[in-house]
Amino acid sequence: MERAIDTQLEDLKKMILLMGGHVEKSLSQVTTALLTKDLAMFDEVHAIEKRINEDHIRVDNVCMNILAKQGPVAKDLRLILSVIKINNDLERMGDQTVNISYSGKDYLGRKPIQAQLSDIQKMSEIAGRMVKGSLDCFVRGDVDEAKQILLMDDEIDALKSKVFKDATAHMKIHSDDVEAALDLILIARNLERLGDHATNIAEDVIFAYTGKDVRHGGKFG
Amino acid sequence: MERAIDTQLEDLKKMILLMGGHVEKSLSQVTTALLTKDLAMFDEVHAIEKRINEDHIRVDNVCMNILAKQGPVAKDLRLILSVIKINNDLERMGDQTVNISYSGKDYLGRKPIQAQLSDIQKMSEIAGRMVKGSLDCFVRGDVDEAKQILLMDDEIDALKSKVFKDATAHMKIHSDDVEAALDLILIARNLERLGDHATNIAEDVIFAYTGKDVRHGGKFG
Repeated sequence: MERAIDTQLEDLKKMILLMGGHVEKSLSQVTTALLTKDLAMFDEVHAIEKRINEDHIRVDNVCMNILAKQGPVAKDLRLILSVIKINNDLERMGDQTVNISYSGKDYLGRKPIQAQLSDIQKMSEIAGRMVKGSLDCFVRGDVDEAKQILLMDDEIDALKSKVFKDATAHMKIHSDDVEAALDLILIARNLERLGDHATNIAEDVIFAYTGKDVRHGGKFG
Repeated sequence: MERAIDTQLEDLKKMILLMGGHVEKSLSQVTTALLTKDLAMFDEVHAIEKRINEDHIRVDNVCMNILAKQGPVAKDLRLILSVIKINNDLERMGDQTVNISYSGKDYLGRKPIQAQLSDIQKMSEIAGRMVKGSLDCFVRGDVDEAKQILLMDDEIDALKSKVFKDATAHMKIHSDDVEAALDLILIARNLERLGDHATNIAEDVIFAYTGKDVRHGGKFG
């Protein structure tokens, strides 16, 4: 017989997937807005973030309800605790996309310093794959795949360092472009943070399904 | 008669206070290291962060244990959920102090661009007061004081904007100082994020003691 909590946990997973879909969309919109110079699209990012914030509160309320009414233990409890954390990471990701929209709008208002924002685009693609991948792992309980997500974070970090290096070098030569270069640095920083949050989710997935705490290099778990 | 859970919740509060003490110390060390040009102090920040990471895992384990064994409801449940979030914010604050130590070390390796880092110092002082204040509120259940913490965040944001503006203006005139100015921008950014996490804690305190969700401007709670 199916337990009531199983249905509730499945519903919770669906809510997280929906919320993750909003984050993916927000990231893809803000990147497209920047790459295609479509200022109006930045506003859509704010509309999506509002929905992410609604999801955030709603997921927390559902978790609290299940905890209060079902008193879950063991694997069920770990799953709910993971959802509480994943919920938090997804909300922060929404904030990052909004930060990117501000810097992106600023950047487009200035003389462009690069013909193509290929590194930013690559970072956004990897971050998007990490968000989607980490939530797929979460729903399927795929711990091996979650470990792959952790590796992708290195790619984003390397690209961030490249953007920082290139933008700094550019600023030193072209003092008129200081603000534009700083915009790109801040955007790269936000994309790196987005990747960090996806990494957190992958770590939470590993904890939820194995009980093994791999945070902080697994040193204290 | 005192319930077993009351003792456990009191112990949990003590653990959070201890962890918060580590965060305050880490922030104060990294700021002093930067202001007094004491490179060795930066290494101490890493040692403190290691303890914060240990606290992080330990607090989560205690929360999970209480949830599994006591099945708390209502105010007790809200308190534990708040602790799970506060724990996360404190751990992130530890990361911010480590980020500051990297940028601070870089900055001290270059030609200084300001005689005194008074805005950075002010930001750090406010952030420190916010960390201490938000945890005092948490332990005392002082919701009015928690609301004051939310206001302090505006001061930090204004100082961050000032550091950004001054550093950008400096970079435009002194191209040799681009890296040093960028270090200060990144430090200001991390201090601003530290303030954001203290704000999160204040919001969690309000939720824990009143059941009122003031996140996202209280629009969806």
